Amino acid sequence: MFDLIAFDADDTLWHNETLFQATAREFAALLAGHHPPEWIQERLFATEMKNLRHFGYGIKGFTLSMIETSIELTEGRVTGAEIKTILGWGHAMLQAPIALLDGVRETIAALAGEHRLMLLTKGDLFDQESKLARSGLGEHFSAVEIVSEKSTRIYATIMARHRLTPERFLMVGNSLRSDILPALDAGGAAVHIPYATTWAHEQVAEAAMTGRTFATLESIRELPAWLAGHAGEARS
Amino acid sequence: MFDLIAFDADDTLWHNETLFQATAREFAALLAGHHPPEWIQERLFATEMKNLRHFGYGIKGFTLSMIETSIELTEGRVTGAEIKTILGWGHAMLQAPIALLDGVRETIAALAGEHRLMLLTKGDLFDQESKLARSGLGEHFSAVEIVSEKSTRIYATIMARHRLTPERFLMVGNSLRSDILPALDAGGAAVHIPYATTWAHEQVAEAAMTGRTFATLESIRELPAWLAGHAGEARS
Repeated sequence: MFDLIAFDADDTLWHNETLFQATAREFAALLAGHHPPEWIQERLFATEMKNLRHFGYGIKGFTLSMIETSIELTEGRVTGAEIKTILGWGHAMLQAPIALLDGVRETIAALAGEHRLMLLTKGDLFDQESKLARSGLGEHFSAVEIVSEKSTRIYATIMARHRLTPERFLMVGNSLRSDILPALDAGGAAVHIPYATTWAHEQVAEAAMTGRTFATLESIRELPAWLAGHAGEARS
Repeated sequence: MFDLIAFDADDTLWHNETLFQATAREFAALLAGHHPPEWIQERLFATEMKNLRHFGYGIKGFTLSMIETSIELTEGRVTGAEIKTILGWGHAMLQAPIALLDGVRETIAALAGEHRLMLLTKGDLFDQESKLARSGLGEHFSAVEIVSEKSTRIYATIMARHRLTPERFLMVGNSLRSDILPALDAGGAAVHIPYATTWAHEQVAEAAMTGRTFATLESIRELPAWLAGHAGEARS
């Protein structure tokens, strides 16, 4: 039924957003003498959004945004030791062990025996390559595409590059905004597997989903059965 | 003669190293009250090298390394205002106008009429895409490959992905370490166009070049004539 199944990585195969959120909470605690934690986290998010078009996604940009926010919120009184603490968080995030989501290792290994799999993720090239290597999942993917943004145009470009018929392309991911909507708009199919928490930037209004057809699964463990059912349905 | 000509970007098509060097000099001047400029630049380079395997190449990592070095060299006494100045340099570098090298615009446009061209560059995905867009050269390249490191394995992977015969692949770049040696080792041909200055990390010992065959040109302007001569030579 599908010539290729593409998987998002962050929060689809391994935990990611929880790492950013935990660091953002530590950041708020570091500056707690200056402002309430909620306000600090709001300002950090605003700085991230302002910087997104210059930095792109990823830990290095997030770390620079934390430093920028710390200077702004302390009116320049942040200390060298505090900045060093923030830099340390950035280093720790870049080297954090990869925590696969439940069921990922078995399911990806099983699917790789029957389908061509692609890893299709946005973010920092160097960091995503490093995470894939550390995840131990690399051998299961026949193609890896790391892109700076997941737009409909990007999905179409990737389908063309790999000579894929859109109707025979399936995207699996946790983000409606990055994985589901643009993949559908490019003519592909999509399976949404929500993550426990969604970064504010990735949230979409429910109205944007009106009239869209895609499956939602609770866990990647349900994907093989869904694929089997889908193939049966298509044949009948 | 060649099915595809691949061009490095930084310091081959547009100025890059000069921007880093100018910022490193400003950085040394900022901390001049603490240490001699040469020592500051040496420590900055050492920090960059230490961080390379976590950050990869690019401006965001360079900015984080400047901040880390400033804390280290002032024993934590660097001020918020000084860190803000460093962050400002990072932002300025990310948005700096793209200054093409002499002859690049005409030569790339002319070559694109007769050859398939690829942009093949290492570094930060988001920043390199942004630079290519701002360069105005994008339309001339039929393929763009941004990689985290230029190794022999990566050249071989790219040749395979684009179904290229190594002997019919030509790499053009300014770095012996990243553009010439690994492209030759992967079975391709190479043309070296040295840039005015070379980042210490990209320098190779002359001994490493022993027994290698590649052309060295003074300017990209000489490339069309070299290609014409090379084709004539290959036919005779």
